[in-house]
Amino acid sequence: MNYQQILDEIYKEAKVFKGQGELASYIPELARVDPLKYGIHLATIEGAEFAVGDSQEPFSIQSISKVLSLALVLPLIGEMLWERVGVEPSGNPFNSIVQLEYENGIPRNPFLNAGALVMADILISRFDDPKREFLQFVRRLAGNETIQYDEEVAASEKATGYVNASLINMMKSYGNINNEIDSVLDFYYHQCSIAMSCQDLARAFLVFADEGCIYGEDTRILKKAQVKRINALMQTCGFYDEAGEFSFRVGLPGKSGVGGGIVAVHPKCYSVAVWSPKLNKKGNSVLGMKTLELLTTKSGTSIF
Amino acid sequence: MNYQQILDEIYKEAKVFKGQGELASYIPELARVDPLKYGIHLATIEGAEFAVGDSQEPFSIQSISKVLSLALVLPLIGEMLWERVGVEPSGNPFNSIVQLEYENGIPRNPFLNAGALVMADILISRFDDPKREFLQFVRRLAGNETIQYDEEVAASEKATGYVNASLINMMKSYGNINNEIDSVLDFYYHQCSIAMSCQDLARAFLVFADEGCIYGEDTRILKKAQVKRINALMQTCGFYDEAGEFSFRVGLPGKSGVGGGIVAVHPKCYSVAVWSPKLNKKGNSVLGMKTLELLTTKSGTSIF
Amino acid sequence: MNYQQILDEIYKEAKVFKGQGELASYIPELARVDPLKYGIHLATIEGAEFAVGDSQEPFSIQSISKVLSLALVLPLIGEMLWERVGVEPSGNPFNSIVQLEYENGIPRNPFLNAGALVMADILISRFDDPKREFLQFVRRLAGNETIQYDEEVAASEKATGYVNASLINMMKSYGNINNEIDSVLDFYYHQCSIAMSCQDLARAFLVFADEGCIYGEDTRILKKAQVKRINALMQTCGFYDEAGEFSFRVGLPGKSGVGGGIVAVHPKCYSVAVWSPKLNKKGNSVLGMKTLELLTTKSGTSIF
Amino acid sequence: MNYQQILDEIYKEAKVFKGQGELASYIPELARVDPLKYGIHLATIEGAEFAVGDSQEPFSIQSISKVLSLALVLPLIGEMLWERVGVEPSGNPFNSIVQLEYENGIPRNPFLNAGALVMADILISRFDDPKREFLQFVRRLAGNETIQYDEEVAASEKATGYVNASLINMMKSYGNINNEIDSVLDFYYHQCSIAMSCQDLARAFLVFADEGCIYGEDTRILKKAQVKRINALMQTCGFYDEAGEFSFRVGLPGKSGVGGGIVAVHPKCYSVAVWSPKLNKKGNSVLGMKTLELLTTKSGTSIF
Repeated sequence: MNYQQILDEIYKEAKVFKGQGELASYIPELARVDPLKYGIHLATIEGAEFAVGDSQEPFSIQSISKVLSLALVLPLIGEMLWERVGVEPSGNPFNSIVQLEYENGIPRNPFLNAGALVMADILISRFDDPKREFLQFVRRLAGNETIQYDEEVAASEKATGYVNASLINMMKSYGNINNEIDSVLDFYYHQCSIAMSCQDLARAFLVFADEGCIYGEDTRILKKAQVKRINALMQTCGFYDEAGEFSFRVGLPGKSGVGGGIVAVHPKCYSVAVWSPKLNKKGNSVLGMKTLELLTTKSGTSIF
Repeated sequence: MNYQQILDEIYKEAKVFKGQGELASYIPELARVDPLKYGIHLATIEGAEFAVGDSQEPFSIQSISKVLSLALVLPLIGEMLWERVGVEPSGNPFNSIVQLEYENGIPRNPFLNAGALVMADILISRFDDPKREFLQFVRRLAGNETIQYDEEVAASEKATGYVNASLINMMKSYGNINNEIDSVLDFYYHQCSIAMSCQDLARAFLVFADEGCIYGEDTRILKKAQVKRINALMQTCGFYDEAGEFSFRVGLPGKSGVGGGIVAVHPKCYSVAVWSPKLNKKGNSVLGMKTLELLTTKSGTSIF
Repeated sequence: MNYQQILDEIYKEAKVFKGQGELASYIPELARVDPLKYGIHLATIEGAEFAVGDSQEPFSIQSISKVLSLALVLPLIGEMLWERVGVEPSGNPFNSIVQLEYENGIPRNPFLNAGALVMADILISRFDDPKREFLQFVRRLAGNETIQYDEEVAASEKATGYVNASLINMMKSYGNINNEIDSVLDFYYHQCSIAMSCQDLARAFLVFADEGCIYGEDTRILKKAQVKRINALMQTCGFYDEAGEFSFRVGLPGKSGVGGGIVAVHPKCYSVAVWSPKLNKKGNSVLGMKTLELLTTKSGTSIF
Repeated sequence: MNYQQILDEIYKEAKVFKGQGELASYIPELARVDPLKYGIHLATIEGAEFAVGDSQEPFSIQSISKVLSLALVLPLIGEMLWERVGVEPSGNPFNSIVQLEYENGIPRNPFLNAGALVMADILISRFDDPKREFLQFVRRLAGNETIQYDEEVAASEKATGYVNASLINMMKSYGNINNEIDSVLDFYYHQCSIAMSCQDLARAFLVFADEGCIYGEDTRILKKAQVKRINALMQTCGFYDEAGEFSFRVGLPGKSGVGGGIVAVHPKCYSVAVWSPKLNKKGNSVLGMKTLELLTTKSGTSIF
């Protein structure tokens, strides 16, 4: 498979979609990003890497961070996690707080904001300096010591995060948050603010393609069953209420963020990250989805 | 891969789960099935077949029929189908009628009862004798001319089908049902009542494993993109509110029915059907799920 | 109090509202009514009567019939009724089927369609010829032997009554409907189709103003506690999701129908019926509400 | 009417209900109240007063304060209030946050917590020292300069008020809260913590019985239409999800609080306050409801 040739083709063909979609507007800092940025990076488990466009420029990974958080939490507490967070798709974004009420403060899955807040609560309970631990973990996964939180993005999100505050208070009323609300939110906004490039993300997500082994190391940090669980969750819950559409068009487990990034994993084969900031109405990168659709079509690597 | 050996092993190991779960009780006819029945049939796209246990005994396929119905409808009307039915997971069974109200009578996906009723409505509009057409289609997919509707099961389900009647009336009030309610329900209950064996089902579902090609024929009846769509829908919506759990444990697109059957597909490789009538609380066969979990683990064929 | 003078004043003043609102369109027969019809009839418990406009012309009473049905059912089965229907406001029209699901098929109150269907079911269980019994009861309350069902309206409503069919099937699935669905719906549509004039309605509703005593008779058919219950239900649940607004503007217990009628009761004093077919967005007669607001303001008879 | 004799009779008869119900437990401070306290105070618009039991002992008025807050807000901003808060019953307690989501952050009525929080936000915008203004207003209504906030109750409620924090954050996300969330919550918890006796409450609520005139003054602070609105709201929304039941049993507009107090108003006649701390499952005082039921029955003063 000549992945570089495929990426080059896609880069040309997909350009026509550059104008479509809108920048995320609810976080002021994100609205200032250059909307024409576009990069792709693909890393195989054999160690080959392929890239095109703005693939080395860091951007705000936002919800993509939830997968990394899950990869840190799951080995820590194991299956007990599922007593506090579910593993099923949620159906509808508007349902989030409704479901929290009906289901006694247990979020449907770890990729909903509510679910990620529970994972943040767990990390705070476990670590003396959870922000430092999380950053170190991400740096190690990506093999890049320069990865940083973006304090401006974190502050910007915190200042307008009323829905998240509503969710976490509801969960706290059901006893599913153990730490101070402000400290959990602070951690969560930092986690989401991490700036990574497509190269960083593709390398970091190799851990899910390569059965738990870290990029550039010989170490396995996740059991096979844990990798399977995380990939299955990305497949069914990774794209807000577009999980079904993404499954069809791309046919790989993946996760998107409102910063315009999408990462996808072809188990036992490769991981790929794409970045283009303009989003469709469901909050997923227009060009990013198109890129991955072309990639699996051209390479015949959809799992379906 | 020695599939026969794997099936034999599973058959022995999985027996300990035979006692778990309950027979479907809401359809009186289904409650009379022998709860200890257990069969598996696996068919590869190369034409090899492997079986164990009660694999040739017909049972009520129930919701599994929705995938067959989708395979008949999709080539008929193409992408226009998605104007009347969605492609996303629904989150929660109790949401079905709630969502119908909020979303103006458009069911979330074709594997919800509401979605299958819309497909039934389409078939009634298209065919003079939709029951005959559907049966012929199923017989052709499975290569078995003896497949029949079970009139007693259909009558039994009709007599107690108040929730389905509620759903279809709600959709009719939104204009998403064109034909007489009674005729749509009659067709739907017949569709669900079809009796097929594991052998029949595995052969019929080869069409989804083999990129649209029918078992025992050289004919392709579905485009690749249509197969991809159907497999993606099975992956995200095939197991009521256990889609996430099934994705993790089995790692294949599949569909279950309250008759105790489950069919799964390994794209470009094989299809497999398993039958054991006792269900867990979410309506999926206990032993059936365990069987498929063991199969993909032992054969290393989970897609994750 | 010179009620005739007040009615005459209102009739002149309120004319400016005649153009506002829309005819009920969902029942074809109702859309054919002359939109400029306007009548008022007020009857005191002392036997005085006052009228103006089209007060003797029969119209379709629709949901107003639910109060009459309740007055027939309540003495029959007493407090046991509240095991099958609640006594609280429902909040929101869209909630009706949602609440039925969450609350196991028990409608919130008898003036929701679902609640009225349960009462219809009870009458069918109790009477050999419930339609005849109900009509006789209404004729007796109003002192008018010529009152009739309007078969065209009943047929018209039946033909398009998908939401009601959805509701009753949902309740049947929870065991809260004992009779055949078709027979309950048939009774219900007849009940709603009854044609009565403002004069008929004002006289019939004297039973609620006069502590259970029937117009023109010495008979008491309801206990005081039953009258209190019915009036309290009209106060809190009589106006779909405008109960609060009506309470404020009119300040009397009452009930409206989509035929454009509204009846209100001043306990121990008078009953009053008004008819004007054009409805506001919440399904209540625009001119009818204005008329009653003016009546209680001019006469100082708001209970608040 | 010999009200004193009636109160004495009730006091004896109602004692048998003293054991029923439970103390409010969710606010630790409230759980420490003597559960056997029981007092009644009735004040007529002519100036007569009648009392029995612990009628002069202050208790936490909690949600009863929402009516006083409404009486302060309504003259300040008039009908514009209804752009930010509705006037209809909410149906169901669990609906509160659901409705906030569906209805864009507009609470159903001012007596829901969400509605009271919006009124608190308005008072904060209007006054330099809203806590002082509100306390002065309440003291003036009751004619008692010694009325105080209970700082321990306020602090206790604040420390566990996660549901309120969830509600206000949700409203803030829709732009329906203008001030800092912490300052609005602080005001709200103080408002609810006010300690008043039955005598204080009966006197304060005379303003709603006496068409806007304050107890012991010649001043009218509310227009008749505003009094009508407040009474209508108490009638339809004053008792959480027992508004219908209270309407039937008591037949007067009223408001309850989880401190065990209930106030009711007979327009143009009297106001009455009762206190007994044990609550039924819907959060209303068991003995309080029984007391008012006996009062309106014995005195024939139900409005129905």
